[in-house]
Amino acid sequence: MAMAQADLEGIYRAYIACLNQQDWSRLGQFVHDDAIHNDRRIGLSGYVDMLKRDFDEIPDLSFNVQMLVSDSRYVASRLGFDCTPRGTFLGLPINGRRVSFAENVIYEFLDGKIMQVWSVIDKSAIEAQFLF
Amino acid sequence: MAMAQADLEGIYRAYIACLNQQDWSRLGQFVHDDAIHNDRRIGLSGYVDMLKRDFDEIPDLSFNVQMLVSDSRYVASRLGFDCTPRGTFLGLPINGRRVSFAENVIYEFLDGKIMQVWSVIDKSAIEAQFLF
Repeated sequence: MAMAQADLEGIYRAYIACLNQQDWSRLGQFVHDDAIHNDRRIGLSGYVDMLKRDFDEIPDLSFNVQMLVSDSRYVASRLGFDCTPRGTFLGLPINGRRVSFAENVIYEFLDGKIMQVWSVIDKSAIEAQFLF
Repeated sequence: MAMAQADLEGIYRAYIACLNQQDWSRLGQFVHDDAIHNDRRIGLSGYVDMLKRDFDEIPDLSFNVQMLVSDSRYVASRLGFDCTPRGTFLGLPINGRRVSFAENVIYEFLDGKIMQVWSVIDKSAIEAQFLF
């Protein structure tokens, strides 16, 4: 159990490093072929597409793990972001301004890979930084 | 370690039961006197005030634990809600309509009580249920 926990935390931190390196060729090491993201079965290819789109819309995107809780099956983390979305983000007209926000996200692992993701981004915190 | 985990999970589930019973006289068993919620030091009394306000604004509010991850210091959970806010909620004019949404939340415990909370409610999911 303790072993499995250490494993998932290590795998998760390597996954985050992979995202920050935008090394999409290695994402299959961390994400299951049939991965589900917020109840949509997007699979590994849809997962890569989603991340490429994120980096296209936010060129200085960087994932920072602020907090991490794990057991033998799940990882929960709080990710911090400090970045400048080019246009709209979550439907908000950011247009190149700097924003700081957090994402609380829970991952279910299967065979050492992310099988399901439940992600919530703190949209209210972004709205509080601007007058829209 | 395994013992501490079981403890926090049990304490957390008792805390959620206490919320659903709106038994504010017992909240001090679960929440630290100097509790911090989303970076604001509201203390136990501010915590009670916040919850009373939530139940006033959402009379049929009920906390449902959909997922729970814990270690010896943190509990991360995904809470599900299915309720009818009376007026505005998160700045959105709900006005008595039924909404479903989730909250991903991480709690830090100190001496068996909630000391700090990082909560993110899925506002985008609520917006997607209506045309505002």
